[in-house]
Amino acid sequence: DVSNVDAKTSHRTHTFPGLFNVAAFVPGLITPNSKDLAAATEAAVSAGFTTSIVLPTAISNSISDRPSLEQARSNALAATHCNIALGITATSSNVDSLDKELQAEVKLLFIPSSTPLSSVAAHFSSWPAEKPIVTDAKGSELASVLLLASLHNRTVHVTDVRSKDDLILISLSKGRQLKVTCDVSIQSLFFTSEQYPGTTSLPSAADQKALWQNLDTIDVFSVGSTPYCLAVESGKLASSESGVEEALPLLLTAFTEGRLTLDDIRIRLHDNPVQIFAIPDQTQTHVEVIIGRKTPFSKRSQCWSPLEQTSVSGSIHRVVFHGQTVFLDGSLFPAALGRDVSATAVAHPT
Amino acid sequence: DVSNVDAKTSHRTHTFPGLFNVAAFVPGLITPNSKDLAAATEAAVSAGFTTSIVLPTAISNSISDRPSLEQARSNALAATHCNIALGITATSSNVDSLDKELQAEVKLLFIPSSTPLSSVAAHFSSWPAEKPIVTDAKGSELASVLLLASLHNRTVHVTDVRSKDDLILISLSKGRQLKVTCDVSIQSLFFTSEQYPGTTSLPSAADQKALWQNLDTIDVFSVGSTPYCLAVESGKLASSESGVEEALPLLLTAFTEGRLTLDDIRIRLHDNPVQIFAIPDQTQTHVEVIIGRKTPFSKRSQCWSPLEQTSVSGSIHRVVFHGQTVFLDGSLFPAALGRDVSATAVAHPT
Ligand SMILES: [Zn+2]
Ligand SMILES: [Zn+2]
Ligand SMILES: [Zn+2]
Ligand SMILES: [Zn+2]
Ligand SMILES: [Zn+2]
Ligand SMILES: [Zn+2]
Ligand SMILES: [Zn+2]
Ligand SMILES: [Zn+2]
Repeated sequence: DVSNVDAKTSHRTHTFPGLFNVAAFVPGLITPNSKDLAAATEAAVSAGFTTSIVLPTAISNSISDRPSLEQARSNALAATHCNIALGITATSSNVDSLDKELQAEVKLLFIPSSTPLSSVAAHFSSWPAEKPIVTDAKGSELASVLLLASLHNRTVHVTDVRSKDDLILISLSKGRQLKVTCDVSIQSLFFTSEQYPGTTSLPSAADQKALWQNLDTIDVFSVGSTPYCLAVESGKLASSESGVEEALPLLLTAFTEGRLTLDDIRIRLHDNPVQIFAIPDQTQTHVEVIIGRKTPFSKRSQCWSPLEQTSVSGSIHRVVFHGQTVFLDGSLFPAALGRDVSATAVAHPT
Repeated sequence: DVSNVDAKTSHRTHTFPGLFNVAAFVPGLITPNSKDLAAATEAAVSAGFTTSIVLPTAISNSISDRPSLEQARSNALAATHCNIALGITATSSNVDSLDKELQAEVKLLFIPSSTPLSSVAAHFSSWPAEKPIVTDAKGSELASVLLLASLHNRTVHVTDVRSKDDLILISLSKGRQLKVTCDVSIQSLFFTSEQYPGTTSLPSAADQKALWQNLDTIDVFSVGSTPYCLAVESGKLASSESGVEEALPLLLTAFTEGRLTLDDIRIRLHDNPVQIFAIPDQTQTHVEVIIGRKTPFSKRSQCWSPLEQTSVSGSIHRVVFHGQTVFLDGSLFPAALGRDVSATAVAHPT
């Protein structure tokens, strides 16, 4: 795929449609006056993500009612460089307070791991059928959620899958016509717990191998909270930008190594997210990348990266958002053109 | 249903077929030279149970391989007063060692709660389709097992259900054509955790109420480990006889109070156990009970009972086992006529 005309400068460009991060983790999401959400969207656009679905669960708090939703929206007013969609978190006490209006205003319901089973069941019963349900449950908690999804005939998207067992469970469920989809954090595909002893958010090398062997079962690649947690647990600087700019360079390098096709990437960062989350597709929006030019990994963000002092074979050249260049050769343009698309829902024919 | 001719002596007799305890707990099941199994079968026959399916998990050990199965069989040689059926316990390491022969020799596979999900899946894949699988998993672990049962298209019997949530999960699963059945410990129907503070094996009063309200979902009444655990946690004398002789007096008293029909009892102590566990029905075997004569609860066993100093309205008059009276008016006949029926399997037409 790479031109061989000039070995030293051999590279190519490729254009993706605007990409989706379906699990953006924003630590200060509902902290009053936090700039974390604004920073997350700057990092997103710089990384080719023109839409970020924001995980409604932050550090020690979450969007779980109207006041917390309004706080996140107020933080979004600071500056939104990409489109964002906000969800709401299921708790054991908020099933009755999620009224029709609140349901209509958010993109999805997030069911965190360790939600009591009876609460999970209550939320499955009352959440509107046409709106996505997302969970980060793992192990037997994941099995519980999948059973309840099956019993309530509901779709469910599993975010941050990182073990072989969970992937098998999802794969078996898909085989039984259970309407389940899943994403894997991009860092889980490239770093292991063995490489970062004492950290808890990466797969083991054996689990990572299983992820690569079962790529067909993985619908979406996400950023998620893994990069943030990895940085924190490693005692490094972490922020809402952690891991975002690493995403495409890692995936494009894997392409140059023959481990992924460009279609694999587009399907999991654009086609499937649009479908699963019923997000309106963005017109006049695309991402130009450079592939095959080996360069030191560079980023705008100041926070720590596992790619520091590493060479990668892919980078973002330009991001065009609604017809305007918003990122070019490392520079982010100041205009914040993003919108809150939480309430939009577009049924894409499958 | 009770004759009113003579109020003072108003009582009636009723004849049940030989009854089944589908979850007999024997603390010293595989302790060398233990008499626990023999004592359990004496208590069983005295209580109208002419067959006991023995839980293969005892105190701190379990039947999980050939040596432990042989030890239990050796203990059974001491004296078996009722028919017994032994099972085998799933562990995270024995899936490959349960060979065809071992599978054929036991009645069922028991999957204890807290078995790792991957082991549960492996056992579901390899256990013969025609042999029962039983679990005492609860909460999200139960949900996991039910999901795996569904994914593997397997039947599963849930023993010792004691919460409303678990019963709802089972009820929903039955509604979705999942092949699941369940039993409730008889003591869970009559005693609550509020009555025995600090104990962990009884339902709360609220959960107990839900059990009674959803009797249709409960396929079987069992004895289980609840009586043993209740006695131990109360600091009272406990043994493999704990709770066995209380079973029918409690149920028959509930009948006199209009809370159960005699059919309810027969279906859950005979018809359904025969069906679910593919046990050969016993000929010339029946249990004569006296109903409506209020008497202090009496038993052969020396161990503690929550019915001590309580009056009950039902008692065992006579137990006939294979044509011979083996129990009459409080006296157990010495002949040990029971057989090990672990390997038998009879398909009953549904
Ligand atoms: Zn191309
Ligand atoms: Zn598109
Ligand atoms: Zn362009
Ligand atoms: Zn350029
Ligand atoms: Zn009768
Ligand atoms: Zn019978
Ligand atoms: Zn008779
Ligand atoms: Zn008599």
